[in-house]
Amino acid sequence: MKLSTEGDPVMALMPTCLIIGAGDGVGGAVARAFAREGLAVCVTRRPRHLDQLEALASAIRYEGGVAHAYGVDARDEAQMIALFDRIEAEVGPLEVVVFNIGANVRFDVAETTAQVYSKVWEMAALAGFFTGREAARRMGPRGRGTILFTGATASMRGGAGFSAFAGAKAALRQLAQSLAREMGPKGVHVAHVVVDGMIDGTFARSMVPDIQPLLDADAILKPDEIARNYVWLHNQQRSAWTFEMDLRPFAETW
Amino acid sequence: MKLSTEGDPVMALMPTCLIIGAGDGVGGAVARAFAREGLAVCVTRRPRHLDQLEALASAIRYEGGVAHAYGVDARDEAQMIALFDRIEAEVGPLEVVVFNIGANVRFDVAETTAQVYSKVWEMAALAGFFTGREAARRMGPRGRGTILFTGATASMRGGAGFSAFAGAKAALRQLAQSLAREMGPKGVHVAHVVVDGMIDGTFARSMVPDIQPLLDADAILKPDEIARNYVWLHNQQRSAWTFEMDLRPFAETW
Amino acid sequence: MKLSTEGDPVMALMPTCLIIGAGDGVGGAVARAFAREGLAVCVTRRPRHLDQLEALASAIRYEGGVAHAYGVDARDEAQMIALFDRIEAEVGPLEVVVFNIGANVRFDVAETTAQVYSKVWEMAALAGFFTGREAARRMGPRGRGTILFTGATASMRGGAGFSAFAGAKAALRQLAQSLAREMGPKGVHVAHVVVDGMIDGTFARSMVPDIQPLLDADAILKPDEIARNYVWLHNQQRSAWTFEMDLRPFAETW
Amino acid sequence: MKLSTEGDPVMALMPTCLIIGAGDGVGGAVARAFAREGLAVCVTRRPRHLDQLEALASAIRYEGGVAHAYGVDARDEAQMIALFDRIEAEVGPLEVVVFNIGANVRFDVAETTAQVYSKVWEMAALAGFFTGREAARRMGPRGRGTILFTGATASMRGGAGFSAFAGAKAALRQLAQSLAREMGPKGVHVAHVVVDGMIDGTFARSMVPDIQPLLDADAILKPDEIARNYVWLHNQQRSAWTFEMDLRPFAETW
Repeated sequence: MKLSTEGDPVMALMPTCLIIGAGDGVGGAVARAFAREGLAVCVTRRPRHLDQLEALASAIRYEGGVAHAYGVDARDEAQMIALFDRIEAEVGPLEVVVFNIGANVRFDVAETTAQVYSKVWEMAALAGFFTGREAARRMGPRGRGTILFTGATASMRGGAGFSAFAGAKAALRQLAQSLAREMGPKGVHVAHVVVDGMIDGTFARSMVPDIQPLLDADAILKPDEIARNYVWLHNQQRSAWTFEMDLRPFAETW
Repeated sequence: MKLSTEGDPVMALMPTCLIIGAGDGVGGAVARAFAREGLAVCVTRRPRHLDQLEALASAIRYEGGVAHAYGVDARDEAQMIALFDRIEAEVGPLEVVVFNIGANVRFDVAETTAQVYSKVWEMAALAGFFTGREAARRMGPRGRGTILFTGATASMRGGAGFSAFAGAKAALRQLAQSLAREMGPKGVHVAHVVVDGMIDGTFARSMVPDIQPLLDADAILKPDEIARNYVWLHNQQRSAWTFEMDLRPFAETW
Repeated sequence: MKLSTEGDPVMALMPTCLIIGAGDGVGGAVARAFAREGLAVCVTRRPRHLDQLEALASAIRYEGGVAHAYGVDARDEAQMIALFDRIEAEVGPLEVVVFNIGANVRFDVAETTAQVYSKVWEMAALAGFFTGREAARRMGPRGRGTILFTGATASMRGGAGFSAFAGAKAALRQLAQSLAREMGPKGVHVAHVVVDGMIDGTFARSMVPDIQPLLDADAILKPDEIARNYVWLHNQQRSAWTFEMDLRPFAETW
Repeated sequence: MKLSTEGDPVMALMPTCLIIGAGDGVGGAVARAFAREGLAVCVTRRPRHLDQLEALASAIRYEGGVAHAYGVDARDEAQMIALFDRIEAEVGPLEVVVFNIGANVRFDVAETTAQVYSKVWEMAALAGFFTGREAARRMGPRGRGTILFTGATASMRGGAGFSAFAGAKAALRQLAQSLAREMGPKGVHVAHVVVDGMIDGTFARSMVPDIQPLLDADAILKPDEIARNYVWLHNQQRSAWTFEMDLRPFAETW
């Protein structure tokens, strides 16, 4: 684990939100949204993306928020445990944990290698398991907290070409269900957001060079609008908690 | 249709929310919540409950809102068309329409009469069809508006004893799905809220005489907390709309 | 109820299969299949189709089976009760009851009349309720029997344009679920078959004038092949009963 | 891979059924059922169970069938590819491939180790991926064949305590869905059987010492009855193929 925040001055502990997988799309927007809610925000990506991650943290700090960037391989159990321990010791108790790693690939089953099938599961499901488990271990005894998982259309349906991605996303959804049923009665809110459609970001812009018309028409999911719903779920009062909600652009065919 | 508002002074038209089925539970809370959002609120119940309905409208007006009460049989097509026409003419354009009529009964299939099976469908599905259709007809050409349907566990699952209720609620859910797919691209947001668990209200209090411990423990759905989610759905930006979300108390087994 | 079998010689009672809605497609094929299993077969359609229905019964008798044709409006409770009573008195105890009435129409919600919405539900759901209830009342006390419902893609999903049909089919599926949960422990097998795709028959041939290539390629559902699965469900031993199975042509996109 | 059939006399190639995971319950019964259909049957278990597996093969041969036993770790890609190659070279072209490995464990998420979570996925999902892929690669070019996956209640629902098992079974179900959509149009039938309830076998008998009353009452799934449905799926004509069916005892609560 490479830490970008070595040498930061000691701060008082404050309620904290951790986003595992904070890229330029949903994860980054969720981080900014929870920072605006007054939570200290901890964001992770793989170590090789630490520069971009630090830029995100800087932007949040520039907007007045508290942010820390951590280069972490979320598939590595030891790194994940150390990350949770360090954040709780140095930043504050985790109020919100968001798992947002995807791994969308498309191959017919016959062309899918064992490496692809396994790696997609490690990124989208095993890392989600580590995230959910470590969050549950810390939140359970406190009887409070929110754990949010980002789902996709593939969470519900195994389309042709999507055996690896859909399998991993379905495993993640079942993890979220099991965790919700285990942790709900302990006062920890677990929810799964099914994001259905193209999301604005680096990948979408590489596919659709002139994306502005889609944005102007609200025909593509905007990360900030997705993020508002994550904050909403966190703020639900516990007499009426949501486990699952879907999000898609108004004109999307489904 | 008996109108309680005959003789009201003429008011300027204002954005309006109509709740079909505004009893003392979810419907009433949704009415109050949208009134606080600044919408004129029109509430309906069957004519024989007009006194209680007028009390709800009075309470909303006392809190500074605009409210009108209408005694309507929502299963009567002519009454429903007249209601929508009158509201749009006299109160304002419908921004939000909520269908909230349930009809929870429990009989084994072998003991269910044709009258029960039909009446439950008329109340929970046919009336929902009139509501959705009349809302769509008016909102579609304007390219804006929100139509919300209250669902239940039975919307998803036909349990023993629930053939009539579950059948009607499943029909209502399919209506909401079809309507969402038809109206989404026209700019009208259609959503279905699956409320799973006991809801505080007259019925719950008749079943559980001392309900305060459940309320204190957040172990029962609170109508005001449900209502906040209806307002949230209405306020979602159209690049990220939800079709379906569930709501249940944190400790509920599911 | 017009009976085509008035004046038939008295026969010994024999185990009987009743098909509600025995047109030229699935219903007729199911009738022939159960006749080949040795059951007396009773088939119904609306009275105005009694000629075609009698032709079906004649064909079955020509093949060596026992068949009776009844012109019945399945939406009429009194006719349905009389039908079940008469069959049990004159033909034999009902071993298998199949509900096979569809009512596929396509209209946007805004263009759907109250008459269409209600009639589709009466045909596809209310008639199914009468069928299931009357079957359950007679089979329950005997602790044996099979009740089969024909479903469709729309049973699971409310597509644009399908609010009436999907609503009715979803109501029928929930009826089947409730009935399965109620009657299973009593020894009565209830199942729901989701038929997904175009079925060979008068309607398909009116849409696709040269249907032979589709038949040769197995690209369209063949009623006889569907019917074999109904017989299979009936013959399942009760330690391993199916509630739901889907059927579609091998090349179908889904 | 340890082979128990070294030294068998050379036989003419014949249509072959391979069962991955042929224990004393469903897998063994499916093997016997397909042997009775006239297929050569190849059965696998982990090498340490080779003795029991060879006993199964002997029993099938005693009944007049053709059977071969292979000790294989189904999570090992190289072993699996070698197994498929060897069977097609020495026994015959694969007509039916059945994946039947489960790994039912129960731990709260917070108590689940990385080893358990990973191993359950390797056994129930990764091994299923190897099975489906190697079958598809061989059957696809021939345009025929059947691939069957054994599912469970946990395939559809993540209950408390089942994150590992439900996650793996959901991944397997999505694999089956993707594979069905990819291979159907190529003439290969892929199906998923949801077995819901306790199955008679070594494990059940260890839990319920006096199991005879359950068997007498058909209150427990009988492997032979399950197996009949696998054969049925294989024998469906391709104009009406099933992707998914459930199986449960008549008195099961669900």
